[in-house]
Amino acid sequence: MNRPSESAATAQAQPSIAEAPAAATEGYAQLVRHHRRLHHLEHLQSITWWDQAVHMPAGGATARAEALAELAELMHGMRTDPAVRVWLEQAHDETLQPDQHANLREMAREWRGANGLPAELVSRQQLATAACEHAWRRLRPANDWDGFVPLFREVVACAREQARLLSAQTGLSPYDALLDRHEPGMTSERLTQLFADIPDWLPGLIRQARARQQALPPLPLRGPFDTGAQRALCLRVMGRLGFDFDGGRIDVSAHPFCGGVPQDIRMTTRYTEADFLGSLLGAVHECGHGRYEQNLPRDWIDQPLARARSMGIHESQSLAFEMQLGRHPAFIAAIGPWVREAFGDGPALTDANLRRLMTQVEPGRIRVDADELTYAPHVLLRWRIERPLIEGEIEVEDIPALWDAGMAELLGLDTRGDFKDGPLQDVHWPEGLFGYFPCYTLGAMYAAQWMAALRAAVPDLDDRFARGDFSAFFDWMRHHVWQQGSRWPTDELARRASGTPLDPSHWRRHLEQRYLHDPW
Amino acid sequence: MNRPSESAATAQAQPSIAEAPAAATEGYAQLVRHHRRLHHLEHLQSITWWDQAVHMPAGGATARAEALAELAELMHGMRTDPAVRVWLEQAHDETLQPDQHANLREMAREWRGANGLPAELVSRQQLATAACEHAWRRLRPANDWDGFVPLFREVVACAREQARLLSAQTGLSPYDALLDRHEPGMTSERLTQLFADIPDWLPGLIRQARARQQALPPLPLRGPFDTGAQRALCLRVMGRLGFDFDGGRIDVSAHPFCGGVPQDIRMTTRYTEADFLGSLLGAVHECGHGRYEQNLPRDWIDQPLARARSMGIHESQSLAFEMQLGRHPAFIAAIGPWVREAFGDGPALTDANLRRLMTQVEPGRIRVDADELTYAPHVLLRWRIERPLIEGEIEVEDIPALWDAGMAELLGLDTRGDFKDGPLQDVHWPEGLFGYFPCYTLGAMYAAQWMAALRAAVPDLDDRFARGDFSAFFDWMRHHVWQQGSRWPTDELARRASGTPLDPSHWRRHLEQRYLHDPW
Repeated sequence: MNRPSESAATAQAQPSIAEAPAAATEGYAQLVRHHRRLHHLEHLQSITWWDQAVHMPAGGATARAEALAELAELMHGMRTDPAVRVWLEQAHDETLQPDQHANLREMAREWRGANGLPAELVSRQQLATAACEHAWRRLRPANDWDGFVPLFREVVACAREQARLLSAQTGLSPYDALLDRHEPGMTSERLTQLFADIPDWLPGLIRQARARQQALPPLPLRGPFDTGAQRALCLRVMGRLGFDFDGGRIDVSAHPFCGGVPQDIRMTTRYTEADFLGSLLGAVHECGHGRYEQNLPRDWIDQPLARARSMGIHESQSLAFEMQLGRHPAFIAAIGPWVREAFGDGPALTDANLRRLMTQVEPGRIRVDADELTYAPHVLLRWRIERPLIEGEIEVEDIPALWDAGMAELLGLDTRGDFKDGPLQDVHWPEGLFGYFPCYTLGAMYAAQWMAALRAAVPDLDDRFARGDFSAFFDWMRHHVWQQGSRWPTDELARRASGTPLDPSHWRRHLEQRYLHDPW
Repeated sequence: MNRPSESAATAQAQPSIAEAPAAATEGYAQLVRHHRRLHHLEHLQSITWWDQAVHMPAGGATARAEALAELAELMHGMRTDPAVRVWLEQAHDETLQPDQHANLREMAREWRGANGLPAELVSRQQLATAACEHAWRRLRPANDWDGFVPLFREVVACAREQARLLSAQTGLSPYDALLDRHEPGMTSERLTQLFADIPDWLPGLIRQARARQQALPPLPLRGPFDTGAQRALCLRVMGRLGFDFDGGRIDVSAHPFCGGVPQDIRMTTRYTEADFLGSLLGAVHECGHGRYEQNLPRDWIDQPLARARSMGIHESQSLAFEMQLGRHPAFIAAIGPWVREAFGDGPALTDANLRRLMTQVEPGRIRVDADELTYAPHVLLRWRIERPLIEGEIEVEDIPALWDAGMAELLGLDTRGDFKDGPLQDVHWPEGLFGYFPCYTLGAMYAAQWMAALRAAVPDLDDRFARGDFSAFFDWMRHHVWQQGSRWPTDELARRASGTPLDPSHWRRHLEQRYLHDPW
């Protein structure tokens, strides 16, 4: 709240371009101040976004949109200030410490992201996605693919132009240029390798797992489960997962998310009386995102170095919490008594039945409802469609046939004629978000790799888990992932953490172990 | 969210000072855009303030303070942009419509408020008030007046300097220059007249009322009263009061307030199981503030014209709701059945007993706990002290003796040695907020004047009220106060609404009627 000294800092932060600073790291120092200011404004953006999802009454929407647009405009002006380019050039020649170098690398990446596109395209793209996303809310329930096509065609046209321009700048292929914004360093070539053999083994594994499970189906949950008790259970489990409630909270929203800022994490979940596992596992999932953010390097918290590394790494944390730890029999044994305290001692609430409910495999049409084993086919299908769509190899009209063929091949489902829970089911494409879907499965792969590395580092891990001691899990994540922020390129992060860049064999082994060999 | 067109507007909004715009109202048009941008940023400020009071975990405080300081700095930069002075000068010579003239008058007033003080004084004052307010939190519970004195002396020294500079600018006396920021147009001379005879009649009225009430004391409330039921009752009563829940909400905070923005009002209250009247009447009070804000002129909502007229007028709305309408026997009869639905049929919950509980007179040391009749003495006492303190006629050391003498004279209480619930009780002075206290009693006076005018305009008002029809009350306020915003200077607003500027005789008559003549 020290306004006068802030004022002085701000005045320094925007010198005339002509006035080259004298100090040896003046360009870098200016960038640090610039990003500190942006960090402060992003704080206000994040908290008001959270408020919008959790608390804002409908009538406040227009005023909020205008206020946030003003802030976005202001921040865009700061990010595209010509002085930033000069500071980046200066800093390039300055003598920096290794962490400062890493920070500068991320600064430059952010700058390219904000400065790469002409205003005319940004404007056209915003109009196109706003129109498509708005219509999608109506067209999806109506199963109206034909109504969607012309609007989506314009979204794709804009995304192709965006990808083409970013491609020219970066030397990446058009699709890879979009992918790089969510998963820096990842390419289609590597994705193709990573995903290549999934169709060869996963459909079979799904069939085997289902056959095994159908011999002893889990007892279904019998609600109603009081939502107050669900909330209390979520809080208790989050405490066990080490969530810092002094620097965060959990509330309710229609679509669970992890928002806020590292110093004040705002997780959400949702409660339905028929089922408590949805809210519980949702909270465990978001808790992985939340602890990552809460434990990013505090000394750098207002700088790009302290950002989460990528969407794939972020998802590796939520999935390490939800899938690796949260569905581990020892963890279920640790929280089982709390579940029964909350909801009574029914036969469906034994540890064994809870474990079966949490690992039940059931192919379905909807990605967000998919279980651990059938999730990847949903991602694979979208990746198979969006890459050639952006590269101009297929057109929007080709999507339904590709969708139906993929769902038949990968999950054995007949989806013909169902657009609502088919290619219309996700908000990503109407919003023009391409290159994002692969991060979900990359996250699952990284999570399995982290767990394998942890297991190698701590040979008695399962004994510790069996005693209810999960501290090694958190300590490993803190040291190898959370505290690293964006200090390393992703491959280097993975190498330092686990000895190799991403290796999908850990994920396959984990799935085969859990779904074929572990007790059912 | 229309970023490109916003971008164009912004670019226009900050032309070089040298580029005199050509259009006949270009200065005014620039000011309109300037205030629209500020309105958007104030939105983010208000919502994050609300979040801070209602939701933010303690660990988020530092990051939030830094983020809000950044925004304050940014807005201060906009408000003190030299271009604004040029636009004001241009606009002064432009041909404007009457409402535009009123808007320009308020723009100029805001500009003076933001530009009147040297940065050095603002800085010194912030340090002094921060130190004093911080220490006050510890010194008040410890009853440590001597520890408070040196810190408060520096706060007063800054406020005197601030008042002196504003006085030189405005031609007002130093205290009046501070008062004018909260209650534009009000002066010490008028306050002296308005408050002059209160000591002559109010202490006697308090004695008479207490004697009358002690003959039949109300039955005390017997809790516990379920806080969920209290919240449901508050929502029901707010609905009856016309609060628009599509554009606002009510939550819990340690100190109830009405925040948010006109399009999204964020009221708070607090619940204790021992007593439901506190939360209920608190909600009714804040509802008056809330409906005022919700019904400010929407066509002007992002301009100074659409601001609430003054703190006194704002308080006139909360007190019209809480005292004039909320304690009216017909209103109590309307909500009495809901109270009994919520908490059962006990003898303390009859309409008559509820009315007695709501109008019970009991002098006490604490302003915020005071009843309708004993509230004004608390304000009068503070006004008697802070005016000469700012004018340099008394010093900080003189306060305790003046306090004790005033409390003895006005409320018959011996407060010697009690600083905690004496001159240390309010946060206003440690925060350097002088010239604010009188607004509370001005609000009570205006509220009574509005009610008298309404009664004159609607002769069968009590019959309507008795039928549970309170629409005339809301319609009158909407038309005469809410929709006027800051279109008129306060005296003109009062004249148009009620025929005369503020006339405190309505308030005295109201109190004498309620506490001496209405059924007890």
